[in-house]
Amino acid sequence: MTSAPATERCLRVAVLGCGNVGGALVGILQERADALAVQSGARLAIAGIAVHDLDAPRPEHVPRALLTTDAAALVADPAVDVVVELIGGLEPAGSLVRSALDSGRPVVTANKALLASADGVALRALARERGVDLLYEAAVAGAIPLVRALRESLTGERIHRVMGIVNGTTNFILTKMDEEGADYVSVLAEAQSLGLAERDPTADVEGYDAAAKAAILAGVAFGYDVSGDAVLREGITGISSDDVAFARRSGYVIKLLAIVERSGDEGLSVRVHPALVPNAHPLAGVRDAFNAVFIEGEAAGELMLYGQGAGGLPTASAVVGDLIDASRNLLAGTTAPAPDRQPAHLVPESDLEAGFYISLDVADRPGVLGAVTTAFGSHGVSIRSVEQEGDGQGARLVFVTHRAREGDVRATLADLRGLDVVARIGGVMRIVGSS
Amino acid sequence: MTSAPATERCLRVAVLGCGNVGGALVGILQERADALAVQSGARLAIAGIAVHDLDAPRPEHVPRALLTTDAAALVADPAVDVVVELIGGLEPAGSLVRSALDSGRPVVTANKALLASADGVALRALARERGVDLLYEAAVAGAIPLVRALRESLTGERIHRVMGIVNGTTNFILTKMDEEGADYVSVLAEAQSLGLAERDPTADVEGYDAAAKAAILAGVAFGYDVSGDAVLREGITGISSDDVAFARRSGYVIKLLAIVERSGDEGLSVRVHPALVPNAHPLAGVRDAFNAVFIEGEAAGELMLYGQGAGGLPTASAVVGDLIDASRNLLAGTTAPAPDRQPAHLVPESDLEAGFYISLDVADRPGVLGAVTTAFGSHGVSIRSVEQEGDGQGARLVFVTHRAREGDVRATLADLRGLDVVARIGGVMRIVGSS
Repeated sequence: MTSAPATERCLRVAVLGCGNVGGALVGILQERADALAVQSGARLAIAGIAVHDLDAPRPEHVPRALLTTDAAALVADPAVDVVVELIGGLEPAGSLVRSALDSGRPVVTANKALLASADGVALRALARERGVDLLYEAAVAGAIPLVRALRESLTGERIHRVMGIVNGTTNFILTKMDEEGADYVSVLAEAQSLGLAERDPTADVEGYDAAAKAAILAGVAFGYDVSGDAVLREGITGISSDDVAFARRSGYVIKLLAIVERSGDEGLSVRVHPALVPNAHPLAGVRDAFNAVFIEGEAAGELMLYGQGAGGLPTASAVVGDLIDASRNLLAGTTAPAPDRQPAHLVPESDLEAGFYISLDVADRPGVLGAVTTAFGSHGVSIRSVEQEGDGQGARLVFVTHRAREGDVRATLADLRGLDVVARIGGVMRIVGSS
Repeated sequence: MTSAPATERCLRVAVLGCGNVGGALVGILQERADALAVQSGARLAIAGIAVHDLDAPRPEHVPRALLTTDAAALVADPAVDVVVELIGGLEPAGSLVRSALDSGRPVVTANKALLASADGVALRALARERGVDLLYEAAVAGAIPLVRALRESLTGERIHRVMGIVNGTTNFILTKMDEEGADYVSVLAEAQSLGLAERDPTADVEGYDAAAKAAILAGVAFGYDVSGDAVLREGITGISSDDVAFARRSGYVIKLLAIVERSGDEGLSVRVHPALVPNAHPLAGVRDAFNAVFIEGEAAGELMLYGQGAGGLPTASAVVGDLIDASRNLLAGTTAPAPDRQPAHLVPESDLEAGFYISLDVADRPGVLGAVTTAFGSHGVSIRSVEQEGDGQGARLVFVTHRAREGDVRATLADLRGLDVVARIGGVMRIVGSS
């Protein structure tokens, strides 16, 4: 297979969406045009940039002449070789991606919501059927070269578990709560004023964003089709500064984790929840808005990939990597590996196992500890440590359990709620790496 | 391009060397044969395993019938499709790799010494000329998918700096010195008894191993040909428990780093030395024999890849990733990207800049501090902090400088050596991330 010199070839790229990421991408395609031509095997020319509003403010470097509001026409243009979708959300992004793939054009996207939807499954199938690339490194953990590592480097590896800090907003909030002892509400307000959290922070703080990424990881790391809706999900809004302080003095830090792990021969558990992570664990040191994904493989052992999970330039950097890949594959007549996926057998939450942190406000009188521990014991939940603080009015009991079935822990909590000596059940959180 | 079902194809793999890595590789190729066939597009059959001694003890799973002592004949066998070189060292490994590439067969190797030698440059050129893959993910940082991340995901990225903990033995020693307050000699002995350090530990503790990996990183991350011999190199044998204790109480941890960074428009600095790393830096949390590489890119920002840098199974895992890649490329008639490399303009050590930690044993009498600080000042080395400890006999002064030219710091040290109030210059170490 002989090649004409790279400079004689040209691939025309349609860019759909020109927000932070699209704007940064257009800048990189211009500034690094020569280097990218060498890497891609062809010059990457911008065929057009589809936007919602031609007159919205944009960086200087975005050429006005390339803007169009007709994304569908841009995708349908036969002169377009590759489509980059950065609009986000389900529609019109989904239809545009479908149209591009259907006509045999590779697509690069950062759209986690689309990929984690039922449409995502269909779009991957369509890409395979048409023999074109559908690449989405930027959809999980931004600039971190995670998808390619899983798809290519670790493709021969049997992966047992993937645990990720994949949402920068919640990691920023939890880091501030840990380092400054601040409470959730005030740190959320700070994150909002810094532009790190949306005015409606639900997608981040309730774990929806992380759940979509967990679903994508289940596909890339384990080869299972999982929809974002099927991911067990718990957010960080219930975490108190008392929970954070207990974790801190006990050698843990609280992180919102997206976890995908094998369970038994056929089962898979895909979930998002806050967890107590021991200080010595590599994920514990991931601060502020950074992301990291910790991978446990049979031969490779423990791996972690760390970096910026969001932001225009870092996300655009991941898009550029995919774009080079798509270009090279297009010129070579191949595609990136995209193995078959199977539907996942998701393990019910009640069958999962973990050590638990459980904080209870109780009456400060004799016999309380006995009543409470009896509730644990009657469901086979073994206590590893208990700490008591009295404050005159009542007392707080903080339990750390040995590894227990979640169903048993929930039954214990139901019993505890029924005890009149228990005033309130405070924080309940899983512990990572406990035995 | 249509493909026959994967199971109908077969690629024959020659395995050269059957130590820890080779033995683990043979095991993975057998145990995961079906999964690997799907990933590779062909069944990977072991054509032969070249060993030095047929009768050496080996794991049960290594088929005796495939062993041969004639590596050259195995490589020359026209039935062999891919060659995996795990012998290590320059010869005969170099000639065998040359012979395989010359006859158009892709090679996967974990041989950092070979790749960082002058032969390595020639072998990469030969692979390009013959249009075949020469892949070496396993040569730097073991199981960590670093080479592919740099070669593919970050290929569009302008990388400013790469800093790696790439030698597990020295990181184990430094971790123990930090966590247990032990001295170098006793921890080295412990590492030797655990099999983590060689009886002759020179290659690890003097930084030769890390220097070879730094040279390879200069190629993969920056596109420059650098030989391991050209890498500035300083080991860990001079680090005292006092140095470690100072670092600890000042919020640092000492790590042996391989650093490759751009300097000015054209220059490159490639070096290995111990450095004080701030506790909040992601590299500071890399403990024991783990490896990690921290990458600073223009668009991607800060990235870190962490994992096991050595060991049979983790290294074999990286070899398997490359083997799948080589197989897929062979079947598709393509090769992995292997851009042109240029000779590097290496920056002289004296022009590099860093903050410095400098520990001096001095006479405990008036005027000493003045004499010493004058020496710093006369070379324009600005002092950020100084700490004094007296012990009756004499005193110790520990300086931390602002960022300074290394040439100026060395001139300062020469002056200090000439002062009769300076009894001894103790630890001198660069600080990472200082301003």
